[in-house]
Amino acid sequence: MDIEAYLAERSSQVNRYLDEVVPPASESPTRLHAAMRHLLFPGGKRLRPALAFAGCEACGSPAEVALPAAAAVELVHTYSLIHDDLPCMDDDDERRDRPTVHVSFGEAVALLAGDALLAEAFEVLASAPSDVEPERRLGVLREVANTAGSRHLVGGQVDDLAFRTGDAAAIESIHRRKSAALIATSVWAGACLGGADPALLERLRSFAEGVGVAFQIADDLLDQEGEEPCSLLRVLDPEQARLRAEELLDGALSLIEDLGERGEPLRELARYAVRRDR
Amino acid sequence: MDIEAYLAERSSQVNRYLDEVVPPASESPTRLHAAMRHLLFPGGKRLRPALAFAGCEACGSPAEVALPAAAAVELVHTYSLIHDDLPCMDDDDERRDRPTVHVSFGEAVALLAGDALLAEAFEVLASAPSDVEPERRLGVLREVANTAGSRHLVGGQVDDLAFRTGDAAAIESIHRRKSAALIATSVWAGACLGGADPALLERLRSFAEGVGVAFQIADDLLDQEGEEPCSLLRVLDPEQARLRAEELLDGALSLIEDLGERGEPLRELARYAVRRDR
Repeated sequence: MDIEAYLAERSSQVNRYLDEVVPPASESPTRLHAAMRHLLFPGGKRLRPALAFAGCEACGSPAEVALPAAAAVELVHTYSLIHDDLPCMDDDDERRDRPTVHVSFGEAVALLAGDALLAEAFEVLASAPSDVEPERRLGVLREVANTAGSRHLVGGQVDDLAFRTGDAAAIESIHRRKSAALIATSVWAGACLGGADPALLERLRSFAEGVGVAFQIADDLLDQEGEEPCSLLRVLDPEQARLRAEELLDGALSLIEDLGERGEPLRELARYAVRRDR
Repeated sequence: MDIEAYLAERSSQVNRYLDEVVPPASESPTRLHAAMRHLLFPGGKRLRPALAFAGCEACGSPAEVALPAAAAVELVHTYSLIHDDLPCMDDDDERRDRPTVHVSFGEAVALLAGDALLAEAFEVLASAPSDVEPERRLGVLREVANTAGSRHLVGGQVDDLAFRTGDAAAIESIHRRKSAALIATSVWAGACLGGADPALLERLRSFAEGVGVAFQIADDLLDQEGEEPCSLLRVLDPEQARLRAEELLDGALSLIEDLGERGEPLRELARYAVRRDR
């Protein structure tokens, strides 16, 4: 399986959809809509949408069934990056080789653009035309909202900002909430729309949580300088960190061995996400 | 009907519920959860939840059916106040006679507390146990998300921040999005959970939009100094503004004349909201 081709295809699929649901930059307030689109397009690798699609395919459903989930997790991810970059948070001037949203549009508009993207994620999930039973769609909404909230994404960011020093377990606990949770929810949401039964859903969640933590370790390894207080490289040497990532990846892959051909996109995405530094 | 007693009763009803769904300040990250609760409790008059309850009662359903909607609109309202108060926005130090959230908890935690409250609004709507058909619940989610997004709440705030001068129509357009929209959605969401048919829902929305704009005029009148660039008192004298509010209120009340006894809480709340300065 050509994972780069898979990512490219799924990426243009979610891009077309996002372009339809997010108001055009020509619509008033134009400055707000331009700010909402600034980081969203062209965006990054669209790994989270790809995981949502792959989660859906793992259940034997066509990828497009997962479109609302794929769009929603990317909207949540983008909102969180915009807010994380703000001066009162990480104060970053650049992301993906472009000025951050607040550098281009000012702090107030950046903050509000993030807010609007978060709301948009839920609007997409609630309003996209879909043949999926409403109960499942409510379930996906509940998971995405819970992941975006104080017990995961936001709570992880608060602990990350306050983090000064701690052991590997403390760092992993922050990574689990701040990045692995949304990765796990991406797979879960796609699989839920794809018709997975509760047992498979839980298995896929465990799989994706492992992948998410390993993914964050890969991120820390890419940022070899390890300047972040909350980098695993503060407490492990690179080789140890790499082993920990491989261990998590192996554990995750073993959970979905029985999925056969259907599980191939998930497996390949997991390997890609964790090994993309090499 | 004793509207003060009605408000007090509905207010404690939604308070008990909010206290259950928002994590306790003792739960980690404690600083985040304390910040989320800072403006939420004791909170304000709970006018929006009361309107959601009253919208539900107008359809002949018991008020408690609207609890998730009542809680969600108050969570959205609270999130928007926290973000509006931030230094990069209106930079307010006090609200409801207490320090604003960022003054008490710092800017980063205030921003994140607002984010988490917004996510919590959708989690409540998606996960509250309910006998209401899932399709209706998805409809309420869609409306609340749309209201919180760039076409209403956030868009109105962007235009408000950029507003320097304009006529009454320009000011009213901002007020419609920034405050009337959430008031209209409060009634709509309560009525939708209460089982209203599409025709009644649209009528109630028009009713509540009129009340919402009149409510904002009442707000401008309370702040007699009219220091805000986007105050109707910049372009109308107080007597004209009062007449405009009464005209909107009369128009709104005429839309729900036929609701009889069931519509009484809505009517009384509308009068209370618009005339609370006298």
